[in-house]
Amino acid sequence: MSDSTPTRGERALIRRLKQDLGAALANQTVPFGDDMAPLPGGGGLLWTVDVLTAGIDFDPAVHSWYEIGRKALAVNLSDCAAMAVVPLAALCGVVLDERMSMDDAMALLRGVRDCGEQFGCPLVGGDTNSWPQPTAISVTVAARPDGGLPPVLRTGGRPGDRVFVTGKLGGSILGRHITFTPRVALARAINAALRPHAMIDISDGLAADLGQIAEASGCGAVLDVALLAAAIHADAVELARRDGTPAVDHGLFDGEDFELIVAVDAGVPEGACENLGLLPLGELTAATGLRLRTTDGVERPLTPGGWEHFQ
Amino acid sequence: MSDSTPTRGERALIRRLKQDLGAALANQTVPFGDDMAPLPGGGGLLWTVDVLTAGIDFDPAVHSWYEIGRKALAVNLSDCAAMAVVPLAALCGVVLDERMSMDDAMALLRGVRDCGEQFGCPLVGGDTNSWPQPTAISVTVAARPDGGLPPVLRTGGRPGDRVFVTGKLGGSILGRHITFTPRVALARAINAALRPHAMIDISDGLAADLGQIAEASGCGAVLDVALLAAAIHADAVELARRDGTPAVDHGLFDGEDFELIVAVDAGVPEGACENLGLLPLGELTAATGLRLRTTDGVERPLTPGGWEHFQ
Repeated sequence: MSDSTPTRGERALIRRLKQDLGAALANQTVPFGDDMAPLPGGGGLLWTVDVLTAGIDFDPAVHSWYEIGRKALAVNLSDCAAMAVVPLAALCGVVLDERMSMDDAMALLRGVRDCGEQFGCPLVGGDTNSWPQPTAISVTVAARPDGGLPPVLRTGGRPGDRVFVTGKLGGSILGRHITFTPRVALARAINAALRPHAMIDISDGLAADLGQIAEASGCGAVLDVALLAAAIHADAVELARRDGTPAVDHGLFDGEDFELIVAVDAGVPEGACENLGLLPLGELTAATGLRLRTTDGVERPLTPGGWEHFQ
Repeated sequence: MSDSTPTRGERALIRRLKQDLGAALANQTVPFGDDMAPLPGGGGLLWTVDVLTAGIDFDPAVHSWYEIGRKALAVNLSDCAAMAVVPLAALCGVVLDERMSMDDAMALLRGVRDCGEQFGCPLVGGDTNSWPQPTAISVTVAARPDGGLPPVLRTGGRPGDRVFVTGKLGGSILGRHITFTPRVALARAINAALRPHAMIDISDGLAADLGQIAEASGCGAVLDVALLAAAIHADAVELARRDGTPAVDHGLFDGEDFELIVAVDAGVPEGACENLGLLPLGELTAATGLRLRTTDGVERPLTPGGWEHFQ
């Protein structure tokens, strides 16, 4: 559900889909386009699917098939985290490059299975195909609400909400985009302790995904440059050293951090957020659009982009 | 879940998967490898995923994207039919060939959506990606048991059961492999009226899928040649005229008929089966393996094969 690394064409397609399919789904408890969809007739269950492809989401020449299988499930678990729900089980449909060995295929599926066992989300079935093209992996995960806590939507942000992130950002391409830990347990703790207004996982980049929360919530957001600087990952600094792009730009626009952006009511004590390790970034605002606030209080527009930014 | 058009390698992989994953899933209400898997924690729900690929399951040069989208959901509805369960909703993950137009992409997804509406199985979400490779389409469907009726498994066949099929077979490649009607409603009527011991939908061919029921049920099957001849589709005859392969071989080995094979207790009145339009083919047997029985009563082995037969 995370339309990862979308092109402009994909974004436009998703917008047309929302128009086309959205009307029929207007009465859903979870609006179309959130990280997971409700399963009608499923007693409150949610589900999500993500398709990962060789050459885009992973590189078989660099990553082991076991790591790749792990990621294929983990991106879905990250969607569960984004809604603070409890994963139940997974299905995996693969179209294997027919040049793959049986051992590679088994490694891929063991990666899915072991990740599922680690997160209490067993792989219970799937579909296996092969073709003379690069490998594509589809994983579907179903999840349940966490006890009496409602799932956290993208749409619930309000002006004045403080914006946090669950970890440092940028430079995930150096390895964390494969090895990241989906924030399932932390998300449940956040939901229980803070009852956040909105959450999303960072698949397309901080700016793009914060833009998603802002747009879905009908508001805008301002990021404090000093706070942002404190939330930049060492990988972003290393990548900046290599490619000359400022580390803060990697923090704002790199995809696949798979940390969570969390919008919390301004009345929640700061200590409660700090106790969960949340890093403050700024606030949601009544004015739409994204802005950066420099240390002297000046605000300038921040174009939502993530991957799209560079096209 | 139908491992459609499997190669030998895929069959071997699925066997290794069963060994590898099967132990952990041994206590499932539905054994690993059936048309759908149980959704743990889902209150009796079942689910299934199928991935269809350009060049194997459909040909964009021949079929419209709308038809292709329809098929991508219909193969999953056929899995629901095979278990006589009621489809609830669908997710669709696509990796689009980046040369596709936006209109083609919308046509594909409208095909999925409209098929879902026709069968009471709304498309509620998905994942949209593109890449410089042929299109792959993953559809997941969840379903519920039909009132108090248990899902029909592959494993429940017993020696002496009569074997039926829900429609004539063979030559689906002439068009029915795209335009077929998944037998959801008929399957529910069959389950209610006949309480069949086992069912499967024909994705890999009559011989291969009857072989699946026989193997899963620990028995064999014999098909009556005269009955088989009466169950051959006109498309199989037409295809035989073109390619010289006997029509009955098309009926036995062609894939993607998407009719159901139904194993019914021998004590069920024949009239009840006829009333539902079921075509008799033969019986399950204590002796394992598949056999053909000629009109003079002689039996000869029938190698399970379907698509594998020709490799």
